[in-house]
Amino acid sequence: MSERFFLAAPPHDGRAVLTGDEARHLVRVLRARVGDEVCVFAGTGVEWPARIVQIGRDEVELDVGAARPDAVEGPPLVLAVALPKGERQKWLVEKLTELGVARLVPLVTARGVAEATPAALARLRRTVIEASKQCGRNTLLEVAAPATPAELFARLDPGTWAFVADPAGPPLVTIPRPVAVGGMLALVGPEGGFTSEEVAAAVAAGSTRASLGPHVLRIETAAIAAAAALSCLARTHDA
Amino acid sequence: MSERFFLAAPPHDGRAVLTGDEARHLVRVLRARVGDEVCVFAGTGVEWPARIVQIGRDEVELDVGAARPDAVEGPPLVLAVALPKGERQKWLVEKLTELGVARLVPLVTARGVAEATPAALARLRRTVIEASKQCGRNTLLEVAAPATPAELFARLDPGTWAFVADPAGPPLVTIPRPVAVGGMLALVGPEGGFTSEEVAAAVAAGSTRASLGPHVLRIETAAIAAAAALSCLARTHDA
Repeated sequence: MSERFFLAAPPHDGRAVLTGDEARHLVRVLRARVGDEVCVFAGTGVEWPARIVQIGRDEVELDVGAARPDAVEGPPLVLAVALPKGERQKWLVEKLTELGVARLVPLVTARGVAEATPAALARLRRTVIEASKQCGRNTLLEVAAPATPAELFARLDPGTWAFVADPAGPPLVTIPRPVAVGGMLALVGPEGGFTSEEVAAAVAAGSTRASLGPHVLRIETAAIAAAAALSCLARTHDA
Repeated sequence: MSERFFLAAPPHDGRAVLTGDEARHLVRVLRARVGDEVCVFAGTGVEWPARIVQIGRDEVELDVGAARPDAVEGPPLVLAVALPKGERQKWLVEKLTELGVARLVPLVTARGVAEATPAALARLRRTVIEASKQCGRNTLLEVAAPATPAELFARLDPGTWAFVADPAGPPLVTIPRPVAVGGMLALVGPEGGFTSEEVAAAVAAGSTRASLGPHVLRIETAAIAAAAALSCLARTHDA
């Protein structure tokens, strides 16, 4: 069975239990039986082959094999984004998960429109799990608590190289980057853009202004292009 | 009025006419009046400021000012993609338009699922116009006729540097690129991947195999990441 299933808790002593929708999907939709083999992960950077040993009413008990770790990736990418609305928000999270972004920080800005309510964040975390199942990623993208740019910079890991997407800035790829970076952060503003005060505050905190191209990008396009470009630049740099 | 309107035909002798949905939207939804100023483009690489001189039943006559050309961009990017289905197809075209891709070639592959019918291509061309209005792009992304990889390579402009997205290939960013390129092409296969014969044929035609990262990317994610990375690599190279 090529589908992957998400464990609410990592295996213990070679045993694990699938619960809730994951268990119901496996048993009722895929009609799995005792002895079938599946692949499971718990968002901890590894996946396990597993064999079904018992099927209960709403849970499936598994015998778990040796952990298979993910390949090591480049420096962690953090995207701080003034979330778009509705389907575009879900789409954004799906794509950032596929592209290997480590953390998404919903950015609280003067012109932002979508409020990152606890219910909205819970929905996004479910999207992360669904996308991780599909794309084979075993470390969950972290959907962090909403933050203003000031809060974001106060919490930043030392050695992080940051840029703020600004249509008036020079193209991202022409920017000199530090020789060694502990991580990379991109700030993407709302449809109306960051205010000049927000850009100035990010620059004062050490960020570089950079443009993602000549056209007006939607929020989710800018965030995805930033993730792809940063991933590319980070690895070019390492090579 | 900050909205942009698409002209079915470029201006002639300083006059232009908006027709169909564009005219109806301007008059019935936005309630424009004679004397109002708008911005128009015809997909020809320029936009024009314009003033409404007459409002007819289903058309709006405009007095057109001096053309404002687009900024010159890097080498043209061509994406050849085994189209995904439904909303993902539309989303792909919107994003490639925003990111400045010059041409999208629907790729006919052994494992492809979405047929690029004339009706589907017409829908995608309407999406290109809608996205161009929104993102400020004045040269339309060309939605080309569907082609097999062999047909694509037979028609390719000389000097084009091509890569085929292949999870088994080395990372895109570690690939050496030619010093001068006339354009850049990325081939993105269907959910099931290219067949080994399709990859071999692309390589025989001069393409480089390259991976877009460690995770399984959906078609539209791979295409958008390829566009962002190529754009980034092309410009890094020029710099």
